[in-house]
Amino acid sequence: MTESNKQESKTVEKEMTLPPKAENFGEWFNAIIEAGSLMDVRYPVKGLYVWYPFGFGIRKRVYTIIRELLDNTGHEETLFPLLIPETEFMKEAEHIKGFEEEVYWVTHGGTSPLDVKLALRPTSETAIYPMYKLWIRSHADMPLLLYQVVNTFRYETKSTRPLIRLREITSFKEAHTVHATWDEAAEQVEKAVEIYTDFFKRLSIPTLLSKRPEWDKFPGGDYTKALDVIMPDGKTLQVGTCHHLGTNFAKTYDIRYETETGDQAYANQTCYGISERCIAAMISLHGDDKGLVLPPEIAPVQVVIIPVLFRKGAEEVMAACNDVMARLKGEGIRVEMDASDLRPGAKYYKWEMKGVCLRIEIGPRDLENRSAVLVRRDTGVKETAPLDTIVDTVKAEMKAMHDDLYDAAVEKMNSMVHPCTKLEEVKEVLGNGVATIAWCGSEECGKKMEDILDAGILGIPEHLKHENGICPVCGKETDKIVYIAKKYWICVFEKRHETPAVWRPPGFFFLYYQL
Amino acid sequence: MTESNKQESKTVEKEMTLPPKAENFGEWFNAIIEAGSLMDVRYPVKGLYVWYPFGFGIRKRVYTIIRELLDNTGHEETLFPLLIPETEFMKEAEHIKGFEEEVYWVTHGGTSPLDVKLALRPTSETAIYPMYKLWIRSHADMPLLLYQVVNTFRYETKSTRPLIRLREITSFKEAHTVHATWDEAAEQVEKAVEIYTDFFKRLSIPTLLSKRPEWDKFPGGDYTKALDVIMPDGKTLQVGTCHHLGTNFAKTYDIRYETETGDQAYANQTCYGISERCIAAMISLHGDDKGLVLPPEIAPVQVVIIPVLFRKGAEEVMAACNDVMARLKGEGIRVEMDASDLRPGAKYYKWEMKGVCLRIEIGPRDLENRSAVLVRRDTGVKETAPLDTIVDTVKAEMKAMHDDLYDAAVEKMNSMVHPCTKLEEVKEVLGNGVATIAWCGSEECGKKMEDILDAGILGIPEHLKHENGICPVCGKETDKIVYIAKKYWICVFEKRHETPAVWRPPGFFFLYYQL
Repeated sequence: MTESNKQESKTVEKEMTLPPKAENFGEWFNAIIEAGSLMDVRYPVKGLYVWYPFGFGIRKRVYTIIRELLDNTGHEETLFPLLIPETEFMKEAEHIKGFEEEVYWVTHGGTSPLDVKLALRPTSETAIYPMYKLWIRSHADMPLLLYQVVNTFRYETKSTRPLIRLREITSFKEAHTVHATWDEAAEQVEKAVEIYTDFFKRLSIPTLLSKRPEWDKFPGGDYTKALDVIMPDGKTLQVGTCHHLGTNFAKTYDIRYETETGDQAYANQTCYGISERCIAAMISLHGDDKGLVLPPEIAPVQVVIIPVLFRKGAEEVMAACNDVMARLKGEGIRVEMDASDLRPGAKYYKWEMKGVCLRIEIGPRDLENRSAVLVRRDTGVKETAPLDTIVDTVKAEMKAMHDDLYDAAVEKMNSMVHPCTKLEEVKEVLGNGVATIAWCGSEECGKKMEDILDAGILGIPEHLKHENGICPVCGKETDKIVYIAKKYWICVFEKRHETPAVWRPPGFFFLYYQL
Repeated sequence: MTESNKQESKTVEKEMTLPPKAENFGEWFNAIIEAGSLMDVRYPVKGLYVWYPFGFGIRKRVYTIIRELLDNTGHEETLFPLLIPETEFMKEAEHIKGFEEEVYWVTHGGTSPLDVKLALRPTSETAIYPMYKLWIRSHADMPLLLYQVVNTFRYETKSTRPLIRLREITSFKEAHTVHATWDEAAEQVEKAVEIYTDFFKRLSIPTLLSKRPEWDKFPGGDYTKALDVIMPDGKTLQVGTCHHLGTNFAKTYDIRYETETGDQAYANQTCYGISERCIAAMISLHGDDKGLVLPPEIAPVQVVIIPVLFRKGAEEVMAACNDVMARLKGEGIRVEMDASDLRPGAKYYKWEMKGVCLRIEIGPRDLENRSAVLVRRDTGVKETAPLDTIVDTVKAEMKAMHDDLYDAAVEKMNSMVHPCTKLEEVKEVLGNGVATIAWCGSEECGKKMEDILDAGILGIPEHLKHENGICPVCGKETDKIVYIAKKYWICVFEKRHETPAVWRPPGFFFLYYQL
């Protein structure tokens, strides 16, 4: 521990007991946000939270991964302003009064009312696409693959929750791409899906990929593919979405280019987003009743060394611990030593809560055998390892831990996806995960299913083998199936959608779809 | 070039001519912002700008350095909310009505007026210190050394300028530390000054360090030390400030701790900040009439390889270029190849504009000698280097370029600091830099000097040897001298200050002092 993060150890040293995750996931989640030093929820505005340094360390590593994946696939990072003038914002919004309920408006600079109100971006289309209009001139200007990581805002009047439902989304990664043809944009959607799937794998998180049904796609877009995670309580959390926007936005924003033959054509666009919900999913899937369990790539502290000290041989033990620490650090491993006066149980508690991947204990008896005891955070399995090769052992165990976390999560997820043939079966399994069921493909049958089940259709699974079945509503034979789930957060748009009189222009409910 | 940043090359390929820097620095600065692909100034709100990917690449590397320096000195990164409730904000502000002119207020969530207005942080004391009150309990909780890199806002009604005077400061690095004793906080200010000096050295920027006079210190703080850069037009730009806050803020925010003897005491605090002005300074000091000149650590592209192709031997030349490219990349050097059809002059123009540190040209004749031609961006000096050892040559030249840029900047700065003994002399030199002159230390004489000279006292230099002199106003002998300068941006507070009837509580004009 450095001198500077003492307020965290203080947090942990409360020795908060976590409620059992299996029995009350919601309470467990709220408790680990504090006990795991992720965020302070006491900031005096509802829905705004403070990242503790330890939590920020997790965030930093998670976003380093998504940046790396994007940078390695031709994307470039950029930064657009937070404030969007009402005039620009309302180009898209003039027919929508209802949406205004969700946007924070800056109306005053000092005590003077502004001539033009400014929206805090709930999403950045209306900030970015007017610039794209200026930047895209010729077919040679494409593809344009840009992204930014920014704070976005939404005026939530319902209950809020750290990392999941926020008024300030502190960590919104949004990519906005422009392509000459529809097919190239479609290819980009596939690439985005692949990047996101890889990203979640790096967090040891398996995802369900599906193509959203027509009535749940990005409004104004051509189609939406989305990634969901099955949370421990069986509900699904949408953690990433990829939209093919066609030329719809290009028409609104007048993004045109000169083709190779000298004609003018509208550009095709995609956008795809990820928020700090990815961290909510990671914590929720891997954590246990002892605290955080973090994939090694993410853990701010990967290894803790605990010297087991007796009067006799204490000096030798400390020397061995220091030697191991230096060797691990030399390999870039994030390691701490805990030689404090805490009793061993308290030390274990403290470092387990923080999700430290490996605990190394070295005592006089270990030294006699030139070995140490290693304990894995995820399995609790103890192992005796020779000191001489301990760096290799640590590396191998960290690699294994990442893979084991992923494999365990895949197994858990698979056990929570229930193939069903009747709606009664679906009803039964929804408390414990996601159902698949045949669907004829008609909106009418789909919505009937949702009504009967009081649940949502996620979409048509990608990469899931299945046989033909019978639509449980109309009885027609079909080769389509859908995921049905209790969703973790029913987005505002879905509720609105039930008022079909309101026309929704493209881009309008973007945020709800991104998150 | 990757496929994705074509809108930059397009910008550059306009072949904009920069106005001569020496004759009209202001116009040159505005032009290079665009020609150097730093920012698009066409965003439809005054004072808000869009970072181009190329400019963002510069920003990223600059902020990687300051983060590294802070992380290596016990600081931890964190993140606090943007929105500050009026109730919290006004704890500090109840006596200040005038200040409200500078703050953006969110008054509406959707169409509903908010119960409590929310300020967009102009600075984060009122967001951070209420949490510090909760976090600091005991002497063992200190020192607390936190920082964040965030966007902050100010309602500028006067003229705005990219990187220098903004409505959204996109890159505000603010550190806020807490200490048990006044002396420890004073030590922290020295450490901050050292970190900032090192930071600017990494950007090859020498700074003037001074202790601000009493009337120009952080209001409510105990004292302020600040770093200024002398810009090419002779005016100074404040680029970093470090404030000892004493216990003043702790008293306002009730940040108390239990001492080792069990008593309650107020904590001592410091804060220090840096904004994207550091990038404005870097560009301004090193750039020339051909475009950006960037220190190698910062340059998004460090080396460009230009194959000189004729019909004969083209294949061999390309093979040699590819080989050099691969070897440089293998060493982590950011290198591009320009084998485009542009004529050589256009290629030189393009890469010089982007501040690429080294150009490597390889043609058939070079190959005969197993050598290449290297051209340094800053000096334009050509050098013939053997291909076999070219990686080492490149590394050595980049190291030399950093040092040479710094040395040249130091020499330039020193030539722009003019020791004076009379106010008439000061008047004369102020068009071309900073004056030093003796000062008795009284506020009355100091302000008289400022009035007579229509210039500002930066402060009492640190680390500048000088002899005793005579205060030019009162004629007293004194061992003190001051820096006097035309300041690049006269901060709002200074102007306000002239209305002494208004009481300023601590922290109120923080932003103006940070920037």
